[in-house]
Amino acid sequence: MTASIQPLRAEYAKAPSIDRLLALVGQDLEAVNQIIIERMQSPVAMIPELAGHLIASGGKRLRPMLLLASAKLLGYEGTRHHKLAASVEFIHTATLLHDDVVDGSNLRRGRKTANIIWGNQPSVLVGDFLFGRSFELMVEDGSLRVLRILSQVAAIMAQGEVDQLTTARDVETTEERYLDVITAKTAVLFAASCQVAAAIMEKDEATESALEAYGRYLGIAFQLVDDALDYASDSDVMGKAVGDDFREGKVTLPTILAYQRGSEEEREFWRRTIGRLKQEPEDLTRAIATMNRHGAIRDTLARARQYGDMAKEALAALPDGEAKDCLIETVDFAIARAF
Amino acid sequence: MTASIQPLRAEYAKAPSIDRLLALVGQDLEAVNQIIIERMQSPVAMIPELAGHLIASGGKRLRPMLLLASAKLLGYEGTRHHKLAASVEFIHTATLLHDDVVDGSNLRRGRKTANIIWGNQPSVLVGDFLFGRSFELMVEDGSLRVLRILSQVAAIMAQGEVDQLTTARDVETTEERYLDVITAKTAVLFAASCQVAAAIMEKDEATESALEAYGRYLGIAFQLVDDALDYASDSDVMGKAVGDDFREGKVTLPTILAYQRGSEEEREFWRRTIGRLKQEPEDLTRAIATMNRHGAIRDTLARARQYGDMAKEALAALPDGEAKDCLIETVDFAIARAF
Repeated sequence: MTASIQPLRAEYAKAPSIDRLLALVGQDLEAVNQIIIERMQSPVAMIPELAGHLIASGGKRLRPMLLLASAKLLGYEGTRHHKLAASVEFIHTATLLHDDVVDGSNLRRGRKTANIIWGNQPSVLVGDFLFGRSFELMVEDGSLRVLRILSQVAAIMAQGEVDQLTTARDVETTEERYLDVITAKTAVLFAASCQVAAAIMEKDEATESALEAYGRYLGIAFQLVDDALDYASDSDVMGKAVGDDFREGKVTLPTILAYQRGSEEEREFWRRTIGRLKQEPEDLTRAIATMNRHGAIRDTLARARQYGDMAKEALAALPDGEAKDCLIETVDFAIARAF
Repeated sequence: MTASIQPLRAEYAKAPSIDRLLALVGQDLEAVNQIIIERMQSPVAMIPELAGHLIASGGKRLRPMLLLASAKLLGYEGTRHHKLAASVEFIHTATLLHDDVVDGSNLRRGRKTANIIWGNQPSVLVGDFLFGRSFELMVEDGSLRVLRILSQVAAIMAQGEVDQLTTARDVETTEERYLDVITAKTAVLFAASCQVAAAIMEKDEATESALEAYGRYLGIAFQLVDDALDYASDSDVMGKAVGDDFREGKVTLPTILAYQRGSEEEREFWRRTIGRLKQEPEDLTRAIATMNRHGAIRDTLARARQYGDMAKEALAALPDGEAKDCLIETVDFAIARAF
């Protein structure tokens, strides 16, 4: 019996990681990093300083890696995807800079945010600069099919962020509305990153759709885990403080579920703390305890696993091999961050 | 003798305007406005509310009109330029939204700025949304030649704005550096708006260059007049407060000239008020008096006229007619705002 248990235990011991993905696309990623460094340069010194602070601060380059691995899965052997992967990372970096202004965050990836060091003004403008550079990179690729996919992303993401502001402090926000928000603000860029690989290769619509769906579901799972971790992790692991969403009155799935499942007294607690943002020092602890009592964090993670499964299923019709295995393990990695 | 004076006086009485330009492109402009209204819509209500506040607030649509008139000058008879003119206006509106966050302005076109009404957060995000929509509109046009011109603009403008932040409070800023800043932050979008008309029609490089130069010189003249008016107009006329640049420590040509030409005592005044931003209530009046003593505002306007003349000259080789006359009168209008 021991023999059959052993592999199971070994599997548990070895947490899912993106090491294999990194090995798969490592060489391409170096080329992408080279383009990123080149294209964030400017004669105005503050631009590479500020952009470099965020870009060099240990981001995983997850979106570029998804693009590169998707291209590998389809057997792509050119180099066009390098610029496009840099473009995708620039969009991501620009939105981070603008988010940090928006949220007044102090920490990102364990470091002070750019807006704290340089101020809001340069953060907004360097974000704009990176948006501009991302667009230049897409246009240099020259494929209208690629441009049609990527050119929509910036507006959709911004729309999602504004929608998130609109739902902030509204404890009556539905799960459906929340899913719309995280799809727009997070999952659409994951989806476009994967889909673009099919567009470069002029693949059929089914292939494009499969990669788009994979990226979208992965992105949703990723954000669900992030939103759960905001009530469950400590800042050493996440590189950001626990309870940020709570303090800002941001309404995410853990809050939605806890509110829906709560007693009238608990609902009044959510209305005060999230709705009217009247918070006492011990409220975060009470919020987390209340969530746990109703399984709100657990079920947020269960939803993440569901979307993770859907992401994997979306790959079913695509060619098997190392690239597909890596994309599947990336889903496990995204979810395992919570455990 | 009276007979020969009469027309001169009549000419003075009739200030240069953009009425003729408006008549020339009015029908096209309605189509552009239609696209602007359509494309600023979103299921997230705050987006059209906030964008509409600025877009409906009596902006002149100068950049779209330049694009439309340039197309007319070249004999264009299609409708592709409508989307591109809307795209250009969206870029302009996005940068205004982001500028107002950056500058902490309270007034724009005589109304409260969006960041005062809705807060910085939505202003940044709706700006991003409009950038995104402007990209979409360009990509829908589908011409790579057009895309190459317009895709560079966002990064260059942002770079100019960051450079402006870098030169802020630096009274030693040179006129050359200042020209780089205003070219990037203002003139490049004017230039691209005009140049695009030639690109739509696949005209030769000389035609593209002529329209690019016209737009660029006009944009520089326009910004020089703006910067002079910031020390010379009253807020009823400009729809913005006098002395904004002074209070923010923004270094523009009037300051540069007054500093260069000033006595050591005057230079110390500029170092204190602009350099260290230590200002007393009567300092703005003293600043304007000092500028006038050295002809700093007068010479800023003289530079504007020089660039205006260069803009007109750039049109020399292009076809004569109503459109060209309108573009020439637009230069006079841009400069006449100061008188």
